[in-house]
Amino acid sequence: MSRNLPVNAGRIAEDIEALADITEPGRPWTRRAFTPLFLEGRAHIEARMKAAGLETRIDAAGNLIGRRTGRKPWSGTIMLGSHSDTVPDGGRFDGIAGVVAALEVARSLHDHGLELDHDLEIVDFLAEEVSIFGVSCIGSRGMTGQLPEAWLSRVSGDLDLAGGIAQVGGEPDVLMQQKRSDIAGFLELHIEQGPVLEAEREDIGIVTAISGITRIEITVEGRADHAGTTPMDRRADALVAASQLVLDIRNAAAELARTPGHFAATVGEFRIEPNAANVVPSKVVLRIDGRAEIRADMEAFCRWLDGHVEKLATAYGVTIGIPNRVSDNLPTPGDAGLLSTLETACERVGAKYRRMASGAGHDTAWIAKVAPAAMIFVPCRAGRSHCPDEWADNDDIALGAAVLFQAVREMDKDSKREKADGTHTG
Amino acid sequence: MSRNLPVNAGRIAEDIEALADITEPGRPWTRRAFTPLFLEGRAHIEARMKAAGLETRIDAAGNLIGRRTGRKPWSGTIMLGSHSDTVPDGGRFDGIAGVVAALEVARSLHDHGLELDHDLEIVDFLAEEVSIFGVSCIGSRGMTGQLPEAWLSRVSGDLDLAGGIAQVGGEPDVLMQQKRSDIAGFLELHIEQGPVLEAEREDIGIVTAISGITRIEITVEGRADHAGTTPMDRRADALVAASQLVLDIRNAAAELARTPGHFAATVGEFRIEPNAANVVPSKVVLRIDGRAEIRADMEAFCRWLDGHVEKLATAYGVTIGIPNRVSDNLPTPGDAGLLSTLETACERVGAKYRRMASGAGHDTAWIAKVAPAAMIFVPCRAGRSHCPDEWADNDDIALGAAVLFQAVREMDKDSKREKADGTHTG
Repeated sequence: MSRNLPVNAGRIAEDIEALADITEPGRPWTRRAFTPLFLEGRAHIEARMKAAGLETRIDAAGNLIGRRTGRKPWSGTIMLGSHSDTVPDGGRFDGIAGVVAALEVARSLHDHGLELDHDLEIVDFLAEEVSIFGVSCIGSRGMTGQLPEAWLSRVSGDLDLAGGIAQVGGEPDVLMQQKRSDIAGFLELHIEQGPVLEAEREDIGIVTAISGITRIEITVEGRADHAGTTPMDRRADALVAASQLVLDIRNAAAELARTPGHFAATVGEFRIEPNAANVVPSKVVLRIDGRAEIRADMEAFCRWLDGHVEKLATAYGVTIGIPNRVSDNLPTPGDAGLLSTLETACERVGAKYRRMASGAGHDTAWIAKVAPAAMIFVPCRAGRSHCPDEWADNDDIALGAAVLFQAVREMDKDSKREKADGTHTG
Repeated sequence: MSRNLPVNAGRIAEDIEALADITEPGRPWTRRAFTPLFLEGRAHIEARMKAAGLETRIDAAGNLIGRRTGRKPWSGTIMLGSHSDTVPDGGRFDGIAGVVAALEVARSLHDHGLELDHDLEIVDFLAEEVSIFGVSCIGSRGMTGQLPEAWLSRVSGDLDLAGGIAQVGGEPDVLMQQKRSDIAGFLELHIEQGPVLEAEREDIGIVTAISGITRIEITVEGRADHAGTTPMDRRADALVAASQLVLDIRNAAAELARTPGHFAATVGEFRIEPNAANVVPSKVVLRIDGRAEIRADMEAFCRWLDGHVEKLATAYGVTIGIPNRVSDNLPTPGDAGLLSTLETACERVGAKYRRMASGAGHDTAWIAKVAPAAMIFVPCRAGRSHCPDEWADNDDIALGAAVLFQAVREMDKDSKREKADGTHTG
């Protein structure tokens, strides 16, 4: 890359390589939260934080934080971060790229001798991925008073989550009282985990919203009949009806996806009973994963679905239960002020950008509940993620880090507004 | 029933009740081949054979046979039979009705003092259902020289099939040399295991053919992508493509079913990978169970399928392997002479009948390879079979037994043709 960036791409590459080496050897790249390898990764990050002149600590929720005090600490904290844990057999960039880019921003400010009015914190959030305790975003929920207390008793083997948080250096006893109110603004860099930026040759995605996730379970019940003897026109075949439903869900989702705002719906779980060669399927249970940037889209989808399954049941002579929303989260819009700051920053560093939604969940969604927050995406190859072949070019990550660097400088100029009313616009 | 039948309906009911009592107590009605309960059931049948004046024996293949010598034994043997073993949690009639009806024919001939020219044999075939050794129709294959020798080494627990046959009184050492050539004609009564006779208020189905069974495996391969981040129009969703295939198979089968000759195709086995809430399905493996009375229908279906999967793969951006015929059996037509004999018999007893194909496999299909053979169906409630609520009215079974009785008398008149050329028309 010929651009003259305010950050050092080589150091980013070194850190990502160093963290990639800290993996279960036979199963790259695996560094799950609450494992000795995870602590090894954090030791590396902490050492690099210290080398960048940051004061390090573990907060009550088990987040690793590197802090640099500003000239006017009453302005609040500018926070940058992501997570260093991985899924099993995961990639080298999901989360890690964001932690390393944040660290590089702190390092570069240090190198350039730039002081901020705000305090600056670089955060490695604990356990963003679904961990051994079966839940995700433990650190970002915990930092913002959104961790359900009952989760602390979730058990994996001999350990409960409270014990796991204590093992990484957190304080489960005071965790439920923690709720940060000093965050002036939060930014996260992440790989896109989708194919859009690469396909459209954009450098940066400015994330307008983190889609809400709605999971819906549907049960189709037909009648188990002998596959040899039951005439085709006397069947109540649950698989045939469910197949029509899968196609209709795909078409409805594709239609909503063509309107403004990210929308996707996927039947990812699907099982049939009795699943025997010579028996007409009697039952299908399927689950839809729906993602919507705009809440009204999800509501329209659910309304359509409720009506449609009734029609299908009649048409195919089967019974379809009312679609059961097993979980339902609202979309999280990015802070409007920060989105505009990020655009300015892109222009400063000469990055081509587009606004886009995140289809995946991120720590940013939790921080956004208590502070202005936004995130940027960098391209990744073929949209592959949560798999060993996940890949992001180092130049793309470095350009993203430069955008963060410029955005932090912009945010720091803006300390008066934050101070004046003590509230945020998120 | 007011009809004056040549058979005794009360005795049929008693035998079916008595056999129903011989079941695993917590799991009615289960009397699987090669179990002590199966031998208990056979002891009952053998006692009833003896009471009917039949000489009993177990042949080399483990079939229980009750024999009555005719006046002209050189005319060959008229054989009637079915099976007394059940599937797990099976019904009281599948197979049993045919054994009891055959026995009742022998009893009624005895009661009426009617002697036949032919020898008469009543057979309880060994292990018609898929047994603990994973294969079916052991007795009828074994009696006719069609049991693959390798099957004798099939193992279940500590026992091999040879040992199992020996335990029920068969002779595995000489079994492979056995091939009956003396059968002048074979008839089997069976419950329909489908809904047609009941729905059309017919008494008897005269089975024109036992459908061939073709099993086809298809693998659809797409691409596992993040369900949240991958736009709807950039997916290769294996489940969506497979759903279209399920519908197309159903429609193609329904069309063939509307032409003369039974045809059915069912996707009974269907599994997706990775089957995870938030991942676009990457793979579906499904199996089709196809049944055709007319071979040309199955050939047309397979030709259509081979071409269609190619088109679907292109349309949905997935890969679909060439459909793999994992097994493929030809249809077995009923003997034309016996079908006409059965029609005459129905008319004699005043039974409403229709010609129809069997969608299921039966012992008759194996006997038909070496002798003239045919079968009749009696109605069963709602087509239910292989389940505890399988039901057939005793009057319907008795009427079927009366048809067998009359057919046997017709067949016995016809001994000259059989003797003249020693061949059969099956």
